[in-house]
Amino acid sequence: MFTRRSMMGSAMAAGLMASPLDAAVRFNRREAGFDITLGAGVVTPIFVDAADLPGVRRAAGDLAMDIGRVTGTDAGIMGAPLSLPARVIIVGTLGISPLIDRLAASGKLDVSAIRGQWEAFTLQTIAHPLPGVAEALVIAGSDKRGTIYGIYDLSRTIGVSPWYWWADVPVVRQSHVRVSYGRYVQGPPAVKYRGIFLNDEAPCLSGWTTEKFGGMTAKFYARLFELLLRLRANYLWPAMWNNSFAEDDPDNPRLAQEYGIVMGTSHHEPMMRAHKDWTDRKAHLGNGQWNYATNREPIRQFFREGIERNRDHEVVVTVGMRGDGDVALASSGDLQSDVALLETIIADQRGIIAQGMGRPADTVPQVWVLFTEVYKYYDAGLKLPDDVTLMFADDNVGNLRRLPLPSEKGRKGGFGIYFHMDMHGGPFSYQWVNSSPLPKIWEQMNLAHEYGANQIWIANVGDLKPLELPIEFFIAMAWDPAVVDKDRIAHWTRAWAACQFGETHAEEIAFLLARYAKYNGWRKPEQLRPDTYSLENYQEAERVCAAWDELMRRADAVNAALAPDQRDAFFQLVLYPVRACANLTNLCVAAARNARFANQARASTRLEGEEVRRRFHEDARLRDAYNHTMAGGKWNHMMDQTHIGYFDWYPPEANIMPAIADVDLPEGAAFGICVEGSARSWPGYYLPPALPPLDSITRRPTWLEAFARGTQGVTYVVTADQPWVQIREDRAFGVSPSDRRYWIDADWAKLPAGTSQATVTLRCRQNGQTIAVTLTALRATPSQEIQAQDTFGGLVGAFTIPVTAYRRSVPVNGVRWESIPDYGRFAAAMSIFPVDAPSCADPSRSPRLDYDLFLGETGDYHIDLVTSPTLEVIPGRRLSVAVALDDQAPVIATVFTPENGPAEDFLGARHPANTAGGARTMRVTVHADRPGRHVLTIAMVDPTLVLQRIIVAKGEPPASYFGPADA
Amino acid sequence: MFTRRSMMGSAMAAGLMASPLDAAVRFNRREAGFDITLGAGVVTPIFVDAADLPGVRRAAGDLAMDIGRVTGTDAGIMGAPLSLPARVIIVGTLGISPLIDRLAASGKLDVSAIRGQWEAFTLQTIAHPLPGVAEALVIAGSDKRGTIYGIYDLSRTIGVSPWYWWADVPVVRQSHVRVSYGRYVQGPPAVKYRGIFLNDEAPCLSGWTTEKFGGMTAKFYARLFELLLRLRANYLWPAMWNNSFAEDDPDNPRLAQEYGIVMGTSHHEPMMRAHKDWTDRKAHLGNGQWNYATNREPIRQFFREGIERNRDHEVVVTVGMRGDGDVALASSGDLQSDVALLETIIADQRGIIAQGMGRPADTVPQVWVLFTEVYKYYDAGLKLPDDVTLMFADDNVGNLRRLPLPSEKGRKGGFGIYFHMDMHGGPFSYQWVNSSPLPKIWEQMNLAHEYGANQIWIANVGDLKPLELPIEFFIAMAWDPAVVDKDRIAHWTRAWAACQFGETHAEEIAFLLARYAKYNGWRKPEQLRPDTYSLENYQEAERVCAAWDELMRRADAVNAALAPDQRDAFFQLVLYPVRACANLTNLCVAAARNARFANQARASTRLEGEEVRRRFHEDARLRDAYNHTMAGGKWNHMMDQTHIGYFDWYPPEANIMPAIADVDLPEGAAFGICVEGSARSWPGYYLPPALPPLDSITRRPTWLEAFARGTQGVTYVVTADQPWVQIREDRAFGVSPSDRRYWIDADWAKLPAGTSQATVTLRCRQNGQTIAVTLTALRATPSQEIQAQDTFGGLVGAFTIPVTAYRRSVPVNGVRWESIPDYGRFAAAMSIFPVDAPSCADPSRSPRLDYDLFLGETGDYHIDLVTSPTLEVIPGRRLSVAVALDDQAPVIATVFTPENGPAEDFLGARHPANTAGGARTMRVTVHADRPGRHVLTIAMVDPTLVLQRIIVAKGEPPASYFGPADA
Repeated sequence: MFTRRSMMGSAMAAGLMASPLDAAVRFNRREAGFDITLGAGVVTPIFVDAADLPGVRRAAGDLAMDIGRVTGTDAGIMGAPLSLPARVIIVGTLGISPLIDRLAASGKLDVSAIRGQWEAFTLQTIAHPLPGVAEALVIAGSDKRGTIYGIYDLSRTIGVSPWYWWADVPVVRQSHVRVSYGRYVQGPPAVKYRGIFLNDEAPCLSGWTTEKFGGMTAKFYARLFELLLRLRANYLWPAMWNNSFAEDDPDNPRLAQEYGIVMGTSHHEPMMRAHKDWTDRKAHLGNGQWNYATNREPIRQFFREGIERNRDHEVVVTVGMRGDGDVALASSGDLQSDVALLETIIADQRGIIAQGMGRPADTVPQVWVLFTEVYKYYDAGLKLPDDVTLMFADDNVGNLRRLPLPSEKGRKGGFGIYFHMDMHGGPFSYQWVNSSPLPKIWEQMNLAHEYGANQIWIANVGDLKPLELPIEFFIAMAWDPAVVDKDRIAHWTRAWAACQFGETHAEEIAFLLARYAKYNGWRKPEQLRPDTYSLENYQEAERVCAAWDELMRRADAVNAALAPDQRDAFFQLVLYPVRACANLTNLCVAAARNARFANQARASTRLEGEEVRRRFHEDARLRDAYNHTMAGGKWNHMMDQTHIGYFDWYPPEANIMPAIADVDLPEGAAFGICVEGSARSWPGYYLPPALPPLDSITRRPTWLEAFARGTQGVTYVVTADQPWVQIREDRAFGVSPSDRRYWIDADWAKLPAGTSQATVTLRCRQNGQTIAVTLTALRATPSQEIQAQDTFGGLVGAFTIPVTAYRRSVPVNGVRWESIPDYGRFAAAMSIFPVDAPSCADPSRSPRLDYDLFLGETGDYHIDLVTSPTLEVIPGRRLSVAVALDDQAPVIATVFTPENGPAEDFLGARHPANTAGGARTMRVTVHADRPGRHVLTIAMVDPTLVLQRIIVAKGEPPASYFGPADA
Repeated sequence: MFTRRSMMGSAMAAGLMASPLDAAVRFNRREAGFDITLGAGVVTPIFVDAADLPGVRRAAGDLAMDIGRVTGTDAGIMGAPLSLPARVIIVGTLGISPLIDRLAASGKLDVSAIRGQWEAFTLQTIAHPLPGVAEALVIAGSDKRGTIYGIYDLSRTIGVSPWYWWADVPVVRQSHVRVSYGRYVQGPPAVKYRGIFLNDEAPCLSGWTTEKFGGMTAKFYARLFELLLRLRANYLWPAMWNNSFAEDDPDNPRLAQEYGIVMGTSHHEPMMRAHKDWTDRKAHLGNGQWNYATNREPIRQFFREGIERNRDHEVVVTVGMRGDGDVALASSGDLQSDVALLETIIADQRGIIAQGMGRPADTVPQVWVLFTEVYKYYDAGLKLPDDVTLMFADDNVGNLRRLPLPSEKGRKGGFGIYFHMDMHGGPFSYQWVNSSPLPKIWEQMNLAHEYGANQIWIANVGDLKPLELPIEFFIAMAWDPAVVDKDRIAHWTRAWAACQFGETHAEEIAFLLARYAKYNGWRKPEQLRPDTYSLENYQEAERVCAAWDELMRRADAVNAALAPDQRDAFFQLVLYPVRACANLTNLCVAAARNARFANQARASTRLEGEEVRRRFHEDARLRDAYNHTMAGGKWNHMMDQTHIGYFDWYPPEANIMPAIADVDLPEGAAFGICVEGSARSWPGYYLPPALPPLDSITRRPTWLEAFARGTQGVTYVVTADQPWVQIREDRAFGVSPSDRRYWIDADWAKLPAGTSQATVTLRCRQNGQTIAVTLTALRATPSQEIQAQDTFGGLVGAFTIPVTAYRRSVPVNGVRWESIPDYGRFAAAMSIFPVDAPSCADPSRSPRLDYDLFLGETGDYHIDLVTSPTLEVIPGRRLSVAVALDDQAPVIATVFTPENGPAEDFLGARHPANTAGGARTMRVTVHADRPGRHVLTIAMVDPTLVLQRIIVAKGEPPASYFGPADA
């Protein structure tokens, strides 16, 4: 028999959802255990007391069908304990199911770990639990949802994904299903209320539900409730874009209660009323104004109805008031009078709650959400009743705006978090596919957890699909943060992939899932522009396209290897986003080339325009495949969201093809060139072309490209006037087969130390025209070579330091820099742990990282710290970090200075760019008083700063999105 | 007999070039006069002494041929005074031609007005001047060029345009050519040296001269010298982009001297050396560095050769030194050491000049040009020898940077101006067609004249063509500013048109010439962008396109009416630029619609893209017509300059078609709308559509547009819920025949005073979908209507005040606001005259303009003064103006404050926009303490400020280029 502890260990190894069952369910009979399959199409029946809660009995019915999905035979359900068979699954809720209580009382069922807990459950195999019963698998919950979660835990572990319907994940048929003998315990969850908010639901979810369910009806919500319970979520803010949960279908609230879903309303819809409830009837409500100062009694009546109709329902009531619709409250005069008005509103609401619910207000869960402008009322001193949960919001893009202060802790209502994985609004909308990498979600929600905002976690998930993965991650983390520790995210993702697609391809699919979100985190797809990635520096656009193309190649390979019945699920969960995002990136880069090539008067400008058009049609084709072909059109409209052509925060009315230019080409043979590092072309620009210098330490080749500028094709002879110049012809970056790239490198053995110069000459075979390009090569001296060993940097040029490549990490008092694997733009990021360590004003005594550098010259160097766009989560903590070169005094970089803070803050001037790319660059300048080897130290000042990369440059580094490529 | 004075009067009436001959030449025999035609193919011969200057004799030969061009028979040339016929034209130079001197000595030739003058001449008819000669027409010059100008003055007045070859202006055959008896005197010129700079000469002038003359040879320059003399210019900076005047063809300097052209070199090529002279031989000149500090003796030798080879030539020597090529001097350390170095250089140069020329340096004309950065050395106190002309430059876009201070006046060398009508460089290049309206040239060069910068005027004219008109204007103004006074510019232009095309269409052609330049002055064509003009406000883009289209229509009508032999000239001088610029504007606006329509998901997006492509091809077709068809291909390459697709200051390598977008259209019927004032479209945007309010005072209708958004065509039913709403259907602005515009107006008779609301509803006939648009109408009370009479403004919205529409202009001590007709963006501008009036610190005592306004509301109003981008021409004069509402204290607006001055100055942050559009907006805010009638006063503080328009708005006015349209 396994103890809980040992099971937890194995659960942690298994990852997903922290279920101890993961390792206990066997699809063979090699080890002893409780058989769910009994052979010859017979399966073990399920007992659930007819007097148990309807939601529990309904879930038991699901289990019966799930067993059928796995085995081919639905399990029978027995409601009376009179004639139980020899082998039975017994389901019930402690304190409600007499049989469960009897087993507990008898000592055969150990409920010590769950009794009195919130949403806990145990699964136990019990030999001879009752007379005539040889063995039973007992699923007992501490409460209604505890039991339900236990039921679905078994469903999932026997092979029914929570997404079996919502993502068409096929259930693998099993002849044998056996649960190892033992006791498996789960719960209580770390976060009491864990849920999602269906939002921004047009055109996708609205169109789909209208077509499939005739709207947001109970048929739709029943499907959703089941999913939420299978995910161990318990809380829902229903769709509210011209939708009213309670009024669109009166069965909705009733079913929520039956299923066991705790209902709320969104942050701006108080008192269990949809905004649509208001707009539908405001003409008849007093003066029709959503203004508590001018239309108080009608609004109170409106509130009253919302509470009264939920008298018997489990709810978390949103309190407070914003404006008419998802906008700010109309001011009553000044901030203090607004605060006073809000305090009155909340006090009145609590009176209505107490009266409507028939019990003291402080026994009814309530939440006040500090969304957008609502913060200011709290900052201005609004007094909130202690039992109301204070919910902090993120910045709409997954960066928390606020965490509980030590002085605020202990409030009875605790703290919650309103998080976004989808946004319709500022700083920009992102409503298409997943662009929230799990490590980023983890990093921010880990702050919430560690700082004590654990009462409610709710995520805005847009249309729900295609955010299946981050939704489940968010809920799993809310259930038990320990199992999705930063070093286990990849593991969790692999387990998730295995749950949907089996073990064979799980590793690869997890890679694909993580990578596509990571790449979308480089730049939100909606915020991709043709000029996002540099064409001239670091081959940046090429490398980004290559990364996406490689991802697509691998996704296609998995797709080909999967069973046919897995392909619908694979398409929606993996293949569509990978292909569509790869296509979109290539589309944007082709548009960039089209524009650049036009500027360079390339004949291939037109080919790039055609490529843009082709990719634009491909995007529509992929969308149509999702909507119409996949799963027989089951998800029609779910991919209706426009995503190409954002010109402000609002989604475009149609996908807009990036504009394509054309050039007026002369007849005949003409050619031009461009060189790495420059957008210019020659012949033309008055300053002669020069290649970036070659460096014997960094040893990167450089390149130039040659291309036709007339209607006739041209070819070139490329020569150099020095024997050490190496030239290799390649295809240019672009779709033209005839544009050429020439890689230029040095045969260092032929070069002396110091600076050498050469001229590379291109001659056009067709018209005899020549262009000479200057090349410089810097060869290190032997002493420089020794100094540069195992360092970053070189003789010349900007360079990059991967943050995990420190020579030394120095912890102080248990506080240290640790890596967050796969976080952000690069392979890993570094941050301070524990995340709630106190700030350290003296960076000479704080945890630090030392990096070895080689600097080619004396002089000032910019140290650009690419950090995450962390906000001022603890008011007054300015988010500083210290940088020092060698033994020089540290230079402190600070984000939230009085001057720059407003721009860096939520909806500040730099917020859109920070969040579109998930990065904020902090610059300090240091002085190297000699060339050669140096030590760069990054020392903590404040926790919560996340360091993604260090870029070092003398002067302004060449323009690019990521900075210099890795060495 | 006419006196000079009376002739001047008539010349002023005739306009062009201030020639008194204009009114004296008759092509009939109705009045008495000297006959050049003698009947039966016989013409009056020309006597020019064989001992007269070769340049005079050569010009006399041109006159003989010009008479032939007019009459069909070349005049004979006689070189010996022995047997003169009864009627003869006698040409000669005072002090050189013995015959002229004899006539003068005899008293028959009155040379009192020209003797000893610079470049003066007289034409006199003399009865019985010599024995056996019945009458003579004597052309006598005070000096060589005086005589030559006199010769060409006769040529021009008998019908040979200075541009007969350079613009293919046909000469009208005349049977009778008679000069009224009298004495006609001209000169001396107001500006001693008047010239042009051929610059930025690739690809046009270079390509053309290579094809036609084998390069910048003497054959080319002879044509140019003749043109310059016919224009009464005397000074030339030769082409120098990889061209060397003296070395490309050794005949060039010799011919210049013979013709009588004073040669110089450009501002950055000292000592009569081309920069190419340096680059061709620098490898053999010391260390090869163009650095006087490190390579002194070789550079001195280089200078010496430049002077020595011009020992016998009339030159103005450029002194000083800039960097290697047209770039700044490499600093020798700090500014003071640079100044000292430059002083040394100039002192050395003067030593070389004295030695090389064999006479004192102060007898050799010299110029030092304060181009771009060179100002700083002068500002830093560089001591320039008094005889060297100090030449101020403009800002490369026709705005003078500096004028002589009273304290600087009296310097022997005086002051010059280097002016641009073409630029290759900062703030942006403009090298295509004329974009310098004459009133703007006048306004700035009038400052030069009035402030005393009259020693040298030189204009950078690019490739020369197609700047024929402004070149001649610039030279004519330099000859005699009085004849091109601000109120006579239109008249001068008409005379110029008559000179090229005859009287019949002169008025219309002058209009076309003035308008196309004016419209190009709205926005330099190179700086036109799709978003330059507003699509949503004031129908701005529509009105601009309509203006260009009307111009094109009128130009086409003239073209059709002209004689066939006039059409080449008309094409190059008028039709090409009108058509090409009209096409370019329409091209840009179509690109704007394409982008906007994409954002609005209009099906017609694609049609606009096709329109862009069509217009782009039309541009190439027009260029080809100029290069290949016009005048039989005589001007091939002259229109090679790229002009579409500027992406920075440098001209694009090829014309780049503005990029065109496309949208992903759904199948079937869908429609959308947009409303005036908004770029948004509906259905879509979450805030409902609302039209701008209607105002019973301003009485402008408003509009909305409806369009298909799907593949199917759609039609609409548009209705209003109020009887006062008037709806009129129209075609939408764009190329789509099916997009609809609905004009919405009020039937004011049906409306009460105050605010009324209505809803306009569009219903799509195909799919039944409706959209409701809110409309507001404000009707004035009777009292408001009375107050608003004869004012500007209305109940609501921004409005505009034409600056000439003042109620009262109050002069002070002879200083007053006067209009400059046709100046700038609108019909006229106002500025202070005299232009060198002293500043007035107290605006309550300064010249002012009062305007009557009607303001609909109490509150703050922005008063945006659209002024010209005048620079700080007198250092320390900050360019202020005062604005007052009613009796309130004036608010002073100032351009060159310490904070904003650098941005407004040459190459400052706002300089590109200021100069691309020829306008700078100065904002003051005033407070109206009551609604109703007000007086707005604009009072002078500094002269040289030019006021183009006044825009009044409560809050920020809607985005547009010109501001609100005229009332």
